[in-house]
Order: sequence, then C-alpha cells, then structure tokens
Amino acid sequence: MGEVILYLGGAKSGKTLAALNHAEKYPPPRFYLATAEPLDAEMVSRIENHRAERGPEWETIEEPLDLVKGLDLAGLAAPVLLDCLTIWLSNVIGLEPDSRDEGLVMARVDKLLAAASKREGPVIMVSNEVGGGLVPMDSTSRFFRDLSGLTHQKIARAASSVFLVTAGLSQKLK
Amino acid sequence: MGEVILYLGGAKSGKTLAALNHAEKYPPPRFYLATAEPLDAEMVSRIENHRAERGPEWETIEEPLDLVKGLDLAGLAAPVLLDCLTIWLSNVIGLEPDSRDEGLVMARVDKLLAAASKREGPVIMVSNEVGGGLVPMDSTSRFFRDLSGLTHQKIARAASSVFLVTAGLSQKLK
Amino acid sequence: MGEVILYLGGAKSGKTLAALNHAEKYPPPRFYLATAEPLDAEMVSRIENHRAERGPEWETIEEPLDLVKGLDLAGLAAPVLLDCLTIWLSNVIGLEPDSRDEGLVMARVDKLLAAASKREGPVIMVSNEVGGGLVPMDSTSRFFRDLSGLTHQKIARAASSVFLVTAGLSQKLK
Repeated sequence: MGEVILYLGGAKSGKTLAALNHAEKYPPPRFYLATAEPLDAEMVSRIENHRAERGPEWETIEEPLDLVKGLDLAGLAAPVLLDCLTIWLSNVIGLEPDSRDEGLVMARVDKLLAAASKREGPVIMVSNEVGGGLVPMDSTSRFFRDLSGLTHQKIARAASSVFLVTAGLSQKLK
Repeated sequence: MGEVILYLGGAKSGKTLAALNHAEKYPPPRFYLATAEPLDAEMVSRIENHRAERGPEWETIEEPLDLVKGLDLAGLAAPVLLDCLTIWLSNVIGLEPDSRDEGLVMARVDKLLAAASKREGPVIMVSNEVGGGLVPMDSTSRFFRDLSGLTHQKIARAASSVFLVTAGLSQKLK
Repeated sequence: MGEVILYLGGAKSGKTLAALNHAEKYPPPRFYLATAEPLDAEMVSRIENHRAERGPEWETIEEPLDLVKGLDLAGLAAPVLLDCLTIWLSNVIGLEPDSRDEGLVMARVDKLLAAASKREGPVIMVSNEVGGGLVPMDSTSRFFRDLSGLTHQKIARAASSVFLVTAGLSQKLK
C-alpha cells in the first residue's frame, strides 16, 4: 500500500533502466510520470530515447511541477515511475529563483510523499546523485545541490527500498 | 584505544547526522570539533543548523587549522566528532595557496592520526566525497580534489571502520 | 578466457592501486596499457608517480587511442591493466570535437571488448566515476559525462567482476 521505492545514481548510471526493470515486475498498465520538458533539441532527443527504451506498455504523464496532480492521473493500483526528481527540483527552483526557500521545497516533497502513501500501487522514484563533486562556486548551485541531498534523505526515510545504481549495477541501500 | 572512524558522503548526504548517531552510542561528555569558520551569513546559518541538530549534550571546540590542539582540548576518554576534514583541508590550503605541497599536507594528516591514536576515546571523522564529478578546469581545484582523495585513503587505512553515507543510509566499507 | 574486470572510482580513490593489487595475483609478465600522454608538467608528474607505484615487474605500453593495437602488443596470456578509460574517452573525443557521435564511440568500446574477449589473460580496466556531480553547463562536458556513463554500463555488462573504490576500499558490485 503506497510503497515508495527510490533509485539513485549518477549521470547515465543506468538508474532509469534499473527502475523500469523494477516496475516491469508489476503487470500493466504502468504509468511513466515525466518531469522533463522538451525545451531544446538535446532535451527532445533525451526524452525520445527514454520513451523508446521503455516501450509501448507504458502510459506517459507529463507534469513538470505538480506531482500530486500527476499521480492523480495514474491508475490508483498501477505502478508509477517518477522520472526524475532532479529535474522536478530544478523546475520548482526555476519558478522562484530568488526565493530559495528550503522549507517551501521540503513541504512540496512532503505532499508528494503523502500523495504516494494514499495510492495502492507503488511509486518508483528516480533521482540523480549530484552531491559527489567539488563545492560549486555559485550559491544557486549550492542551494540546488543541498536541496537534492535533503530531498533524497527525506524520501529515503519514507521509502521501503532504496537502490544506488553505478554502471548499471544496483546496490540495495535499504 | 584511539580508534578512528570515518564517515564519508556527498553534500547533504546525512553524513554528519550518521556520525552523530554513531557518537551518541558513547556516554556524555562528547566533543564536537568544528573546523568551519562563520565567514558569511550562509556559513553562520549552516553552523547554527548543525549546532541545533546535535543538541545540548555536546561541547563544541572550534579549531579551523590545528586539529592536534583541538583534540587536546577534548577529554581524553570522550568521543570526539571531527566535522569536517574537507573544510579543514580547504583552510590548510588557504594558508599557503601558492605552495601546493602535497607532502606537507599529508604530514599534517599523519600528525592528526598520531594524536588520535594516543587518545582513549574514539575520533569520529566526517568528510565530503568530492571526487565523483568531472575533472575541474583549474589546477587549484584539481589539487584540492586530489588531496581530499589522498587524505581519505590515508585515514581509511588507519581507521577501524569506514562508512559511506548516501541519502542518509550508511554503507560499511570497512 | 578473455575475462574483463572493471575498477571504478572517483579522483584519487585508490582505484589504480586496487587494480594493480588485483593484477598482481597473476604471475609476471604483466602489461600496463597507459592511455595518458604527458602533455604538461603536471601530467609528467602524475605519470611518473604511477610508474613508481607499480614497480619494475610491469611492462608499459603507451597507447592513447587505439586500444585494440595496444592489447595486441601485450602477451596473449598475460594480464593487462588498462589505465584509464576516462582519459582514453577524452582522447577519442578530442580527435573530433565537433562530431559528438555517441554511436561511433560506443562502436570503439565494442571493438575493445571484442579484442579483450579474444585474449587468454584478463584485461583489468580502470575508469573514473565522473557522473556524481551537478549537471555541467557546457554541452561538451555533458556529452563526455554521458559517454563515460554509457561506456561504464557497456563494460560492466561484459565484465566478470566490477568494483567501486572509495578511500582505497573496494566494493564488489558484480
């Protein structure tokens, strides 16, 4: 009931594919909740590649910001793959670039977790590990990096399973 | 006797909280050896948040550079949480930004380990994993990144336990 | 027969030393296939340090680009330590900086794996984990980061063992 599963990994670590494989243990229909918007040619290409990877047994919901609404559009008992939290966080920050209110963003994460817990089917969340490099020079990047880490901690606490993916190989952290 | 424990993790990975939980297995008094100096409003806020997280059962020692002196100020049998090596390394490099002498910095790490080994209580060290991103363009950043990695290796060799924290979840590496 | 072993890790994580220790389980002769070219004083120093670390029981082959040719120069039954894929990828991209053809680079990785599979001795490959930081601003860096991740996934699928090294400590991912 309302299970949350988190897949973390670096860029092109294979985290989305690992999450897809996890989701495909559940029978269709399955819902892919995409947070990326095709703003330029590179993004269009990335989104198309991802769509091709997951095949026709998936229904796509595109929702860059309101993930509670996005979850509402999916069948209550069906698995939802939310890909990804990193882009969602970036979209949220982009709305109000000057506010930088950690509390407001964390409240949005709480609402997402509450909505997930009310579902019957699982929500499998994918997110980028972005905190393993040097401290960025600009404060917006530091803020984004901190928010990502805090979001991962909060979701990991609520999750039934957490996986870290490296080179396509999953380590179960929880 | 003089046990060293190392907690590594990315930004906002929950490494300090994991180290605090580890330290709180030991009875008070406990000492928090802080290497960060409140140079601007952002740092003041980060330091205050950390202080609030650990509560009143901790005595704080502030020492940005001379960690051997910092350890001397703590009770010999008490646990010390050293938070964090990354900022300490940054402070050390900042002293002599042009020298870039890896050997000098490694000698300081050796002295820290020697001082820790003479204590009765454990020293729990926290450090940022900073080597998981792209190669930085400027040589000072590369030097700092290399020093961090070499310091982690040296301390991990001396440590009785090493943990890697991701999304608040600890993996025991040693 | 033609075993591939992959060692991944961040900067100065101890991945090369871990790979050397792995290779030294095999009797000499052993071959070190170096992809780095000594373009400046910093690189000369890094290369010399690595050479000193591995001692005289290793024969060095220097080949920045054509790794199939590099493998051909090593004894068929001997272990080869390929250090490292990151610099090789950077050399490959540097040849044709404007083409950015992911397919061409992946075809080169396939050829490397085919050549490794035809050998009797193992090929132990070392590569940098570079995808754990923030999304880089410039598209060349994003391309390089994506290629690194895709290369790691492809090699990990073919490998008999994959290790992730942090602070000199190896985790076996596969």
